[in-house]
Amino acid sequence: MSKVRMGLVGGGPGAFIGDVHRMAARIDGEIELVCGAFSSQPEKSTEAGRALYLPTSRVYESYIKMFEAEAKLPAEERMEFVAIVTPNHLHYPIAIAALEAGFHVMCEKPATFTLQESLLLKAAIEKTSLLFGVTHTYTGYPIVHEARERVARGDLGKITKVLVEYNQGWLADSEAEASKQASWRIDPKQAGISCCMGDIGVHAANLAETITGSNITRVLADLAAVVPGRQLDDDGSVLLRFENGARGVLVASQISVGEENNLTIRVYGTKGGLEWHQMNPNTLTLKWADKPAETVRAGWGYLGNTAQHNTRTPAGHPEGYLEAFANLYTNFSVAVKQTRTNKGNGITPIEGVPGIEDAINGMAFIQAVVTSSADGNVWLDINKVIANAQQ
Amino acid sequence: MSKVRMGLVGGGPGAFIGDVHRMAARIDGEIELVCGAFSSQPEKSTEAGRALYLPTSRVYESYIKMFEAEAKLPAEERMEFVAIVTPNHLHYPIAIAALEAGFHVMCEKPATFTLQESLLLKAAIEKTSLLFGVTHTYTGYPIVHEARERVARGDLGKITKVLVEYNQGWLADSEAEASKQASWRIDPKQAGISCCMGDIGVHAANLAETITGSNITRVLADLAAVVPGRQLDDDGSVLLRFENGARGVLVASQISVGEENNLTIRVYGTKGGLEWHQMNPNTLTLKWADKPAETVRAGWGYLGNTAQHNTRTPAGHPEGYLEAFANLYTNFSVAVKQTRTNKGNGITPIEGVPGIEDAINGMAFIQAVVTSSADGNVWLDINKVIANAQQ
Amino acid sequence: MSKVRMGLVGGGPGAFIGDVHRMAARIDGEIELVCGAFSSQPEKSTEAGRALYLPTSRVYESYIKMFEAEAKLPAEERMEFVAIVTPNHLHYPIAIAALEAGFHVMCEKPATFTLQESLLLKAAIEKTSLLFGVTHTYTGYPIVHEARERVARGDLGKITKVLVEYNQGWLADSEAEASKQASWRIDPKQAGISCCMGDIGVHAANLAETITGSNITRVLADLAAVVPGRQLDDDGSVLLRFENGARGVLVASQISVGEENNLTIRVYGTKGGLEWHQMNPNTLTLKWADKPAETVRAGWGYLGNTAQHNTRTPAGHPEGYLEAFANLYTNFSVAVKQTRTNKGNGITPIEGVPGIEDAINGMAFIQAVVTSSADGNVWLDINKVIANAQQ
Amino acid sequence: MSKVRMGLVGGGPGAFIGDVHRMAARIDGEIELVCGAFSSQPEKSTEAGRALYLPTSRVYESYIKMFEAEAKLPAEERMEFVAIVTPNHLHYPIAIAALEAGFHVMCEKPATFTLQESLLLKAAIEKTSLLFGVTHTYTGYPIVHEARERVARGDLGKITKVLVEYNQGWLADSEAEASKQASWRIDPKQAGISCCMGDIGVHAANLAETITGSNITRVLADLAAVVPGRQLDDDGSVLLRFENGARGVLVASQISVGEENNLTIRVYGTKGGLEWHQMNPNTLTLKWADKPAETVRAGWGYLGNTAQHNTRTPAGHPEGYLEAFANLYTNFSVAVKQTRTNKGNGITPIEGVPGIEDAINGMAFIQAVVTSSADGNVWLDINKVIANAQQ
Repeated sequence: MSKVRMGLVGGGPGAFIGDVHRMAARIDGEIELVCGAFSSQPEKSTEAGRALYLPTSRVYESYIKMFEAEAKLPAEERMEFVAIVTPNHLHYPIAIAALEAGFHVMCEKPATFTLQESLLLKAAIEKTSLLFGVTHTYTGYPIVHEARERVARGDLGKITKVLVEYNQGWLADSEAEASKQASWRIDPKQAGISCCMGDIGVHAANLAETITGSNITRVLADLAAVVPGRQLDDDGSVLLRFENGARGVLVASQISVGEENNLTIRVYGTKGGLEWHQMNPNTLTLKWADKPAETVRAGWGYLGNTAQHNTRTPAGHPEGYLEAFANLYTNFSVAVKQTRTNKGNGITPIEGVPGIEDAINGMAFIQAVVTSSADGNVWLDINKVIANAQQ
Repeated sequence: MSKVRMGLVGGGPGAFIGDVHRMAARIDGEIELVCGAFSSQPEKSTEAGRALYLPTSRVYESYIKMFEAEAKLPAEERMEFVAIVTPNHLHYPIAIAALEAGFHVMCEKPATFTLQESLLLKAAIEKTSLLFGVTHTYTGYPIVHEARERVARGDLGKITKVLVEYNQGWLADSEAEASKQASWRIDPKQAGISCCMGDIGVHAANLAETITGSNITRVLADLAAVVPGRQLDDDGSVLLRFENGARGVLVASQISVGEENNLTIRVYGTKGGLEWHQMNPNTLTLKWADKPAETVRAGWGYLGNTAQHNTRTPAGHPEGYLEAFANLYTNFSVAVKQTRTNKGNGITPIEGVPGIEDAINGMAFIQAVVTSSADGNVWLDINKVIANAQQ
Repeated sequence: MSKVRMGLVGGGPGAFIGDVHRMAARIDGEIELVCGAFSSQPEKSTEAGRALYLPTSRVYESYIKMFEAEAKLPAEERMEFVAIVTPNHLHYPIAIAALEAGFHVMCEKPATFTLQESLLLKAAIEKTSLLFGVTHTYTGYPIVHEARERVARGDLGKITKVLVEYNQGWLADSEAEASKQASWRIDPKQAGISCCMGDIGVHAANLAETITGSNITRVLADLAAVVPGRQLDDDGSVLLRFENGARGVLVASQISVGEENNLTIRVYGTKGGLEWHQMNPNTLTLKWADKPAETVRAGWGYLGNTAQHNTRTPAGHPEGYLEAFANLYTNFSVAVKQTRTNKGNGITPIEGVPGIEDAINGMAFIQAVVTSSADGNVWLDINKVIANAQQ
Repeated sequence: MSKVRMGLVGGGPGAFIGDVHRMAARIDGEIELVCGAFSSQPEKSTEAGRALYLPTSRVYESYIKMFEAEAKLPAEERMEFVAIVTPNHLHYPIAIAALEAGFHVMCEKPATFTLQESLLLKAAIEKTSLLFGVTHTYTGYPIVHEARERVARGDLGKITKVLVEYNQGWLADSEAEASKQASWRIDPKQAGISCCMGDIGVHAANLAETITGSNITRVLADLAAVVPGRQLDDDGSVLLRFENGARGVLVASQISVGEENNLTIRVYGTKGGLEWHQMNPNTLTLKWADKPAETVRAGWGYLGNTAQHNTRTPAGHPEGYLEAFANLYTNFSVAVKQTRTNKGNGITPIEGVPGIEDAINGMAFIQAVVTSSADGNVWLDINKVIANAQQ
């Protein structure tokens, strides 16, 4: 047996998220980066390959060439899956090309540029029977798994209310726009129809759906470009309805000055409530009607199997964002290994890895909130938004 | 000089808030309870009077008799102001009767049962030139004053976003409805048009307006009776617009199981943000774009005069809810004393005491959110709601 | 029935703790301040009496005159107990004079200036059968009662370890010494043999003994005058042994810059641990070996009777330092009332009020740590220290 | 350029810390595990090698064979440094053998079994001019670097007081002793002269010395075997003196039920104080005499270069224990790379990596506290303890 072999598209010098993907893929020692097309500028791709100790022969000038060349390598040598960390608008064509060339795909979020693309991507995945994952990182935390399981087994009773928020402050400053990280996010050509909701609001929505085990069915959104002159939203609030009947509020902001990366969720049911803060990720607070609140912590033996499976260190040795990210990669690598003996076909969804349904739900959420807000803050049905996109 | 003499209407045996008013009025030793009509049942009023060490002669069977009798007592002996702690629907007639009999009024929130009543009450106050206060307790905390002052002097820049929430869980249990505290709140005849928004949502709105120094101008509300069978809301979310252009979200709930009395506000401006939690009331967190967050604490010399004036103990000796409440009473008593030499006429608004404008804004907020939600979650203009009520 | 009638010695203009005692005595409306000798300077005493709305006839120029005069008043009018809030060195003579004049005594901590005095005071109390309380305020918090009860009923198993600390920073600045609050504390003539340990270390010791239900039996102390030139300790650490076999550490400091009034205790037993922070007084954290930590909160129905008896408001309406202080006064007033029908004799100890045994233990602790430190950081037996003082 | 090549001694199946070292070495992609002698049982070593995807030829049955064989490999292929993760008593002979064979050494803490060994190890390091690091992991956190730098530049003034504690609860249960993790720690043959102080107390001491930049010079210790029947300490408290004149207290415990891995430090100086909790590692609280406390957070631009250099993700994306550990490895790998062009000789100490002086200080601390406690809780001079060991 060998490590699972990964190729990378994007993630050249200066790209933040490329480094994160690589670190996440490395931690557990189950994945080896074997090739890459790191930049559309060949010299930058070469530079990145060298910094990553890759042989020159496996550093490509384009993803098209990479897929072609790798497909010709012996099976035990060639890339088994590709990780896509390019700007958003390129995710879809690269993913389609990879699938068509026979490679599994791990894609940075959002999986596609438009809702329609994500529906087409689903068709391609189903046709090829290859594996697909999208890095909704925050569901990789062991305590998020624990929260999900506890809701699923009814500890909180029937879910009635969900409050989820994702607040940042770094886009409050119009001068910060010049930065590489900021400039593409506020540009409709690169980011798509939304900045704040597309970048982080969708994470909040995914987290809420994951923990409650229930999809958002309707939204009424109030988006704004708070910093003058912006074409896309940098702040927004959304009223929610869930499939299970629960109501909710989602707040996302990139202009809440002083906030770092404050993703927080509270879920209430008829029997109890839970609270989780991404910035303090190893703690889950459970609240009860008639007994003391409990502080559930990562690393304890009382946790469910899934939480324990996604944890590396004993209680009190904090794991963080990179480990949550690594959980996605390692769980994905297990599925890839299984395809080695399974004639290449993957079983989806992969346990512990957000997949194409999360991707579609996310794109539909973005489409719906942007439309709801533009139409005067009216209720929109997510399923209708998806149905429209399918036509 | 003597203590300021207070009479009480309501607050008989078993009433929670009556005790709170009395404790608040006592702490600073500036107010003496001299008489009361504690219950509509005379024997209960008598019982309460005895427990409070009042002479039988000053315990009345009705507020009407109390106002009559007290008005006839010598000036240096008779009640100077009345505190009203009856069920909501009685606030208005008692307040009007008190004013007409020449007594200043301190009223439990909400000041009236309807928006129209609060407008009429304002007219009565203006006509009599007597003092009026309403116990929006939470603005009595010294740190709330500090927050207000810092926003007012521009520390946070232009305010862009307000998140305020007031979550409780005690009404989640339908069986709890039998309790005295619950039963009147969910009964339209006693509580008015709203349970959750009228009881606590309005506190959140008042807190947001107080700290930002800016009124809520528009609302889009999504209220619900989550516990089946209820006639009034027990949960709700409201999108907000403020006079200063800021956007916001207000969440209030009495079915968020496990929540105690979680009133929390976050305000963001172009330069910084602030965060305050009522359950940890002596701490104000200030957040900045490019330097460490600061933890402002009650009792320090660096605080503004108002915060210091409303504090009794050194830093680290926590003051709480009763002290916040006491600040309203003590500030009110100072104003009452001033009227002794000022021919009875009060100057309003009283510094450090919410007044009739807060009361009107609160009633308009309740009216607006109930209407917005009933009309299908549409935007309503608060000023139009007030204008309609005035017709 | 009438309110319990209190006289005050000390607490004139500018005295911090006098105000605190008065507020504490007022909150529950069970105690009336009827007289006082507020200062050794008659005009200051008069000024204080006027500010407190006392009749001139009940404002005295000395405690001796007060006790004489009050004793001659009709029983239903005269002071029933005296509260002593003078500088430390006067506590003992005043308390003795009060007892001899037939008055119950509530005394600011430390009850006496020396250990010997506290032993003599005990004899006087026993001889007169009058009530005595000392304001170890911090044990007045409802959550401290809850902690004590839970330890007593064995929830934590056999107690093995106690960590208690009381850290302040305000005496770090030598310039602050000029303040009224600081100057007497660092002066051996007024403060006694210790500054930091006498002022706050003793509170920490009392808290540990109260919660564990076990006395400190041995100490090894390391005291220091960190600010140059001081005659008394402003910082210290003490190794502890308890009667029940537990070990512990007590840290107290007045030079820990930035600390407000950080009294914190952690107690561990064979089955579990507890943690309490005075600055967040309504929360008790319980820690377990194999299940999630629990957050026990004031105001909930699951609390024991004592905690509930010492609480005024529902959960989430924070009570603080003044309410903890008030619990001592109100519990004391109940005992005083009982003596009205019990021919003046009190039953001690009074439930919920630290008494003469606490006072003696406190004085012995101070004596022992000062001696241990001066003798080169050696173990001292508290009982021997007491035995020595009795000779 | 190639990755730095690491060999591993120890870390076979079931070993906790071996996994941690491997994950730490992987994260940044600068180190490649090329060989190992994972267990004294050859089949276990083989099993571990296979699980780690190593070629059979590089999996050895003993460290002696590994050093021999690797030394014969071509320079560009052979192991450059060895990481030692065996039980404590083997650290020294392995380290010596590695140095003698020309390999740099990264050693799990404690570096040696006795103080004398650590002094001999220092001599060997100096003689060979090879690199040596010891994994006092907790100083790898970026915020610990920040704390150290701020103390060094005088932000807190002259340091006066240090409170450091490291509390765990997992050894409270005597039944837990059967576990692999517990059994060797409480066995003098494998753990050495101390359990609690050797395992975790020494981390606390190292943290205090690192942040203050000042060595502990004297100790007075009170150790105990709280669980009956143990030969080694499972709990202890130590009074401290530092080279810079500061006083302190160190508490370490493995029987504090419910505590996870609670390493906490507070340092006070004449101008301010700081507080850091390992379980919330990305936050440093700074406290001041006359202005609000500040919350310094990892990932912000206002941090010093060292903190930024040791951080991978933006603020609010929590890094944890593995990343702190990885900082040691990555900083070590940079130094190893430098020796490639520097004829094999390393420059020590390595910036960002605890070295032999930390190791010696740690061993001297353990020796001193055990002796102080055994001798009746007396002061011991650390330098004398070292001098004795050198004879």
